[in-house]
Amino acid sequence: MGTTVIKDIKIVEVSPRDGLQNEKEIIPFDKKKSFIEKLMETGVDEIEVGSFVSPKWVPQMQDTDKLFFSILPKDGIKFSALVPNMKGLERVMELPPQHRPKKLAVFTASSDTFNLKNINCTVEESFDRIRPVVEFAKREGFEVRAYISVAFWCPYEGKIPPEKTLYVCEKLIEMGVDEISLGDTIGRASPKDVSDLLSLLLKKIKPNMVALHFHNTYGMALLNSFIAFRDFGITTFDSSAGGLGGCPFAPGAAGNVATEDLVFMFENSGVKTGVNWKKIVEAVSILGIPLRSVISKVLGSR
Amino acid sequence: MGTTVIKDIKIVEVSPRDGLQNEKEIIPFDKKKSFIEKLMETGVDEIEVGSFVSPKWVPQMQDTDKLFFSILPKDGIKFSALVPNMKGLERVMELPPQHRPKKLAVFTASSDTFNLKNINCTVEESFDRIRPVVEFAKREGFEVRAYISVAFWCPYEGKIPPEKTLYVCEKLIEMGVDEISLGDTIGRASPKDVSDLLSLLLKKIKPNMVALHFHNTYGMALLNSFIAFRDFGITTFDSSAGGLGGCPFAPGAAGNVATEDLVFMFENSGVKTGVNWKKIVEAVSILGIPLRSVISKVLGSR
Repeated sequence: MGTTVIKDIKIVEVSPRDGLQNEKEIIPFDKKKSFIEKLMETGVDEIEVGSFVSPKWVPQMQDTDKLFFSILPKDGIKFSALVPNMKGLERVMELPPQHRPKKLAVFTASSDTFNLKNINCTVEESFDRIRPVVEFAKREGFEVRAYISVAFWCPYEGKIPPEKTLYVCEKLIEMGVDEISLGDTIGRASPKDVSDLLSLLLKKIKPNMVALHFHNTYGMALLNSFIAFRDFGITTFDSSAGGLGGCPFAPGAAGNVATEDLVFMFENSGVKTGVNWKKIVEAVSILGIPLRSVISKVLGSR
Repeated sequence: MGTTVIKDIKIVEVSPRDGLQNEKEIIPFDKKKSFIEKLMETGVDEIEVGSFVSPKWVPQMQDTDKLFFSILPKDGIKFSALVPNMKGLERVMELPPQHRPKKLAVFTASSDTFNLKNINCTVEESFDRIRPVVEFAKREGFEVRAYISVAFWCPYEGKIPPEKTLYVCEKLIEMGVDEISLGDTIGRASPKDVSDLLSLLLKKIKPNMVALHFHNTYGMALLNSFIAFRDFGITTFDSSAGGLGGCPFAPGAAGNVATEDLVFMFENSGVKTGVNWKKIVEAVSILGIPLRSVISKVLGSR
C-alpha cells in the first residue's frame, strides 16, 4: 500500500482547499467527494480536504464538515484542514473522532499589509488568534501546520527580508506548530530568494519541519522546488492538481504549482514522489475546470 | 555601449528566425525590420536575423537577404543566419561584405528519424552536406555555429544517449565549427538529462563552445538553464522574444523559452544578462502575435 513505497519527497495535495477556494463556481458536493476519492488513488501523501472557515467568507468551503463526515482516508494518506480560529476548531471537534483530520492548519503571513487585507489583523495580532487554536489542537493530539503567506515577496511590501519570515517561523514553533509551509503566494520568488531564506531558516529549524508552497506566476516554481530539494534537503512540497488556485491579491497570478508538473519534473530527475501524474490529471479533470498545468496542455493537444 | 556592460551570460535572440519560421501568417518586411531594430535596443548579444533557405521551403524567411541588406548591426551586436547548404552560402556572399552576418549556422540532429523527416537525410549524410558549408565559411572568416536538434530527446526515438550527441558534436568540431547549440527541440529534457549530457560533453569540449537551446513544453526550460549555468558554467543561451517558435514534430510543444522569462529569472537570481526584459516584450509586441511568455501574462492582466 501507499506507505511502503520508497519516496524521496512528500506531496501535499492542496487542490480541494487552496485550489478550489478561489473558484467562483461552487463545485457540487458529490463531485468534490469523487474528486477527493480519486486523489486518494494517485499516491499523494496528504490531502487538504477543506477549511473550517465561515461559509459566508468562503462559500466554496461550506461542505467541509460533510466531506470529512463522508470520506475516510485510506492507504496511509493523511487528511488535513484549515482552521482559522477557535470556532473552526469547535466544528472539527463535533466530528466523530475517526472522521477528524489528523492535521490542522493555521495561517498568517510575513507582511502586515497583506495580513490586514486578508484577515484584518497584523502579524502580531494574528499570533494571538492562532495561539489558542494551536494549544488546543496539540492537547487533543492533532498535528499542526502553519502557513506563512508571502514568505518571500509581498504584493504590497515587495521583497520580504528573510529575517522577518524567520521571526514569524520562530514565534509559530514556540507555540507548538509541527510544520511550517512557506508560501510564495504571488509566485515571484527566484532561486536566489529561496536560497537566501532557506540558508537562514535552516540554521534554526530542521528541514523536515519546512514545507514549500510555490505558485507558478513567473514560471519559476519547478526551478525553486528543485533547488529547495537538492541544495537544502527540503522534502515536503505543496501542490495543486491541475494548477488550480490563485491569489486574488496577485495581478496575473498563476495558480499553485501543478502537482502533475511537479511530479513529472521530479520523477524525470530521478527523485521518487510515489505519485502517478496521469492519475492526478484524471482526478482533476472530473471537475470540469480548465487546467493550468503544462502537462495538461501537452496531453490536450494530442 | 552594449559591449561595456558586464555580463555573466550571453543571450542569442532567435525569434526572427526560429521564432517566426513556424508562424503561418507572413510578417510583412517593414514590420520584421522594425522588430529587429527594436531587438537591437534590448541588450541581447546576438540576433539570428533569418535563414538562407529556399523561400519555397520556408516562405516566412523569403526576405532574409533584404533584411541583411537593410539593417546593419550596432552596439556590438552580432547578426547570424541559418545556412542549410552551399546555395544558401552563395546568397550570403552576394551581399556587400559589411552586410553579411558575422556568424553562420548549420544544422543537424542527434536522431536519424528526426533528421530524415526534417531534412530528408540521415545524421551521417547531413555531415556531407554541412562540411563544404563549414569549410567555405571558415575560409571566408565567418564564425560558424552548428545546431543539434533533439540533442536530449527525440519525438520518435525517445531519450537520446548522451554518447550519440557527443559523437555528433565531435564530428562538427572536427569540421571547424566554433560553437554548438544543443537543442531540446521538444522541450522534454529534465535537469537530470541536461546534467547527464553536459557531464559527458564537457570532458571533451570547452563550456564556451556550447550554447543551450531550450523549449518550454514541460515547463522545465528555466530550471534547465539555471542548472546549466550554475552547475556546468554554460554561459550562452538561445531564447525567443515572446516565447515564439515551436516544433511541428512535437505534439503540444511550447515555443522556445521566452527571452523575457529567461532574463527575469537570471537577473532575479543575481546573474547579469545585460538585457532589459521590458524592452523585449515591447519589441515583440509590435508583431501582433499572441505571446507565450509567463511575464507577458502577468503584464497582460494589469
